[in-house]
Amino acid sequence: MTVAELAALAGGRVVGDAQVLIGRVASLEGAEAGAISFVEEGKFLEGARASRASCLLVPEGTGESMVAAGEFAATLIEVARPKLAFALIAEVLHAPLRRAGAIHPTAVVAESARVEEDVFIGAGVCVGERVRIGRGTQVLAGAVVEDGVEVGAACVLHPNVVLYGGVRLGSGVVLHAGVVVGADGFGYVRDAAGYHKFPQVGTVVIEDDVEIGANSCVDRGALGETRIGRGTKLDNLVHVGHNVEIGERVVIAAQTGISGSTVIESDAVIGGQVGMGDHARVQAGAIVGSKAGILPGKIVRAGAVVWGVPVRPLDEYKRLNAHFGRLPQMRAELDELKRQVRELTARLAETPDAGEPGEK
Amino acid sequence: MTVAELAALAGGRVVGDAQVLIGRVASLEGAEAGAISFVEEGKFLEGARASRASCLLVPEGTGESMVAAGEFAATLIEVARPKLAFALIAEVLHAPLRRAGAIHPTAVVAESARVEEDVFIGAGVCVGERVRIGRGTQVLAGAVVEDGVEVGAACVLHPNVVLYGGVRLGSGVVLHAGVVVGADGFGYVRDAAGYHKFPQVGTVVIEDDVEIGANSCVDRGALGETRIGRGTKLDNLVHVGHNVEIGERVVIAAQTGISGSTVIESDAVIGGQVGMGDHARVQAGAIVGSKAGILPGKIVRAGAVVWGVPVRPLDEYKRLNAHFGRLPQMRAELDELKRQVRELTARLAETPDAGEPGEK
Amino acid sequence: MTVAELAALAGGRVVGDAQVLIGRVASLEGAEAGAISFVEEGKFLEGARASRASCLLVPEGTGESMVAAGEFAATLIEVARPKLAFALIAEVLHAPLRRAGAIHPTAVVAESARVEEDVFIGAGVCVGERVRIGRGTQVLAGAVVEDGVEVGAACVLHPNVVLYGGVRLGSGVVLHAGVVVGADGFGYVRDAAGYHKFPQVGTVVIEDDVEIGANSCVDRGALGETRIGRGTKLDNLVHVGHNVEIGERVVIAAQTGISGSTVIESDAVIGGQVGMGDHARVQAGAIVGSKAGILPGKIVRAGAVVWGVPVRPLDEYKRLNAHFGRLPQMRAELDELKRQVRELTARLAETPDAGEPGEK
Repeated sequence: MTVAELAALAGGRVVGDAQVLIGRVASLEGAEAGAISFVEEGKFLEGARASRASCLLVPEGTGESMVAAGEFAATLIEVARPKLAFALIAEVLHAPLRRAGAIHPTAVVAESARVEEDVFIGAGVCVGERVRIGRGTQVLAGAVVEDGVEVGAACVLHPNVVLYGGVRLGSGVVLHAGVVVGADGFGYVRDAAGYHKFPQVGTVVIEDDVEIGANSCVDRGALGETRIGRGTKLDNLVHVGHNVEIGERVVIAAQTGISGSTVIESDAVIGGQVGMGDHARVQAGAIVGSKAGILPGKIVRAGAVVWGVPVRPLDEYKRLNAHFGRLPQMRAELDELKRQVRELTARLAETPDAGEPGEK
Repeated sequence: MTVAELAALAGGRVVGDAQVLIGRVASLEGAEAGAISFVEEGKFLEGARASRASCLLVPEGTGESMVAAGEFAATLIEVARPKLAFALIAEVLHAPLRRAGAIHPTAVVAESARVEEDVFIGAGVCVGERVRIGRGTQVLAGAVVEDGVEVGAACVLHPNVVLYGGVRLGSGVVLHAGVVVGADGFGYVRDAAGYHKFPQVGTVVIEDDVEIGANSCVDRGALGETRIGRGTKLDNLVHVGHNVEIGERVVIAAQTGISGSTVIESDAVIGGQVGMGDHARVQAGAIVGSKAGILPGKIVRAGAVVWGVPVRPLDEYKRLNAHFGRLPQMRAELDELKRQVRELTARLAETPDAGEPGEK
Repeated sequence: MTVAELAALAGGRVVGDAQVLIGRVASLEGAEAGAISFVEEGKFLEGARASRASCLLVPEGTGESMVAAGEFAATLIEVARPKLAFALIAEVLHAPLRRAGAIHPTAVVAESARVEEDVFIGAGVCVGERVRIGRGTQVLAGAVVEDGVEVGAACVLHPNVVLYGGVRLGSGVVLHAGVVVGADGFGYVRDAAGYHKFPQVGTVVIEDDVEIGANSCVDRGALGETRIGRGTKLDNLVHVGHNVEIGERVVIAAQTGISGSTVIESDAVIGGQVGMGDHARVQAGAIVGSKAGILPGKIVRAGAVVWGVPVRPLDEYKRLNAHFGRLPQMRAELDELKRQVRELTARLAETPDAGEPGEK
């Protein structure tokens, strides 16, 4: 595509030769001729000038001065948000591979399954009874789709994904390799003999445009459903317990675990290796720092930024950590004070008119 | 089944129409006609009265008064432990799907494998040489059972489970999708050139009625065996290192990791995201809080309740955390004391008969 | 093999009958006739004397005295490092199973794939277009090797491993079951509508002799590459984010997570459940304790030993933890001091010549 076309796509303004052809995205350092890259505010000039990219996305109002400051081989496109424009352009230049509709001869698809047009079903895939798969969806090698599952349009199930019976996926859902959706939740009732399984007969609903990282697990609801809202993104090795409810546009980094019945409202941002107890609630737009621990039943207020185990507001967390780091100094000051008070007490005892000394 | 039959099953007493037919379990809110639900002590009346369940399990001695307090559409069953009764009834009403014995034509089963009656082997399953699979076991699509593995009766290996060569499973074992049993433990010996693998030639034994959550990993013993005792339950994404020994009826929540040669005795309860160093021991019935860290070689005493990194008794953990949260106040008090002592020292210096002032 | 042969292999000296035949390695307690075991300095005599092993590796200079101290059934081999010798001997006695070259009839191998001699491709394996697989490599059942992947010689891909398109493995690489290499990194750009994927169009390079534990995930680079250096070993359930660069001979224990663009230099040792923020750097030979948390951008100096969240030098970590544990005592001392100062103040106020009391 030409720089002019990309500029139109990104809503930007061209500074330089608009007819240069661009074939792919690249980092500033990794770019070669034919690549487009981007520079973010603050730290750009050095890297940008050294880059061999043919086109650079730059912040609005910076293009002319960059060119003025010295010879610039690359054509520039000024946009409000270069990184966002870069992502949008990449979606076009590097559209994910969509294999043509086909069912591989080694796949096993139940007769009662309803597979729409343009669906690709790879080698060794297993599709159960009464499954429905929407148009354009790609089910890659080794994935297992159990009975009664519904998958929307334009989804990608990467290799070896497993969907347990009856779970439902919207459209545009991407599940990376090894993701398991709908395994039994972890609930037992104990008696003298040991543990009896609490019924795990609910389901999972994953809404449109959700993406889930490799080897993550989303358990089915015990009685109701586990739900992940539209546009939410989960990283690798995340655990989502039974009956968890995650809102829209939530981001959850790798290895975080969410216990049963906890709610994460829309637009929350959750770091990696966070642990959430059951029946907790993270309200809309809250930010939970990596490695944080949220106790069962805890409510994190809308928009709050919390860190630590257990979580505290970030300001308080930082302040407490600073105090923690100065404990040895505090200890030393306390010892010095004790010495001074001992001395004062002794001196006061020697003062004739100072009355009776107190108990030490 | 009729309410009368369910009451007999649960050892309960019917209050109301014992001939009502019940087909499934449900939550109080999610229940429709034909469903049974349960109420636990304390918080029941509101939800119970609003529920559309046809039958409710209630604590002993509460049925009559509940009915007396107002019209009650549902039949009640009084039982000692409603949640336990609910679980037992669910085991009957929602017995897990047991597919009839069959070997899918796309499965690859070695000639030397000994597969008993009523075993289901799904699409694309691979069963190695000299494997033995007990009666009624279900090996679902994509599972891989390597040479020499022994699987007992009535097990369920969910899709894409992998059993490395020679591991042994008892009866009634449930492994969720993506579980890996018997991969090499993580042990190396370093020399100048780098790391040499310490031999990982032991095995894994998983006793009867163990359930392991999706994508969890149980490594084989280096020289001896890794063992998980009867009735123990592991959640998703748990890591069990080489030569770990887990007793009976242990519960381990998601994402916990157990290093090599550590022992967890029977009836322990382990939270999520706990980390245990090697050669540690959690004695019988101990409770380890989520996110706790147990140092190598540490012994957690029988019945203890421990939290934190490193673990401490829960009481102490809470007390220390409270002190931690008040560090800024402690700092302020210390500063105020220093001020007062300075002042006292100064005043004492002005007192004619108070002798020599000490060093500041 | 004879003890003499094993001694030659390990560079050791035989004390006793050098013609005894040895067939396998074992622990001291688990050994039977025909097995070799080892004893490390310090704690050996009890276990060694009780062992039924036919041969024992012992530290240099200890053999004769051990024999002199009492009857010893086993032949001894004195070596500088018994455990290392044991590992080297195990590599010979228990060479990993290498199946003869063969492509299972249920495997699906693209015509354009170039598979060298002696490669084993198991049941249900899927090998994509233009894949190259080096001599002697074993691709076990259910593994998926997507288009354009390069795998070196003598690798082992255990069952259900997934290699996304274009990733490259050196020789001697071992990936345990369920490992996913090359899934998309976790990067998004937000606008009003939600999250757009930042392009994840880089690749992964895994150098020679790397071993990766079950169900671990290594994401592809966003624009460049994610790289794991020669001889590095990863445990189970480890997460390696996009563009991470790991040096040679690094060891990373289970469930550790490494965020995007972080660098771990050669010979570092990383504990389990460690979390690393993005763009951090662990310099050569540093040791990071289990459960540690490394903030984004943080540099851990070469050779440092760090623990805690956030990481601190181990000495400081221990000292602070000790202070933390004594907070209640500090609190009590502070209260006692306050009492004493109050008393001193009161007494001084009663002293006729002590001037004006300060404010309390």
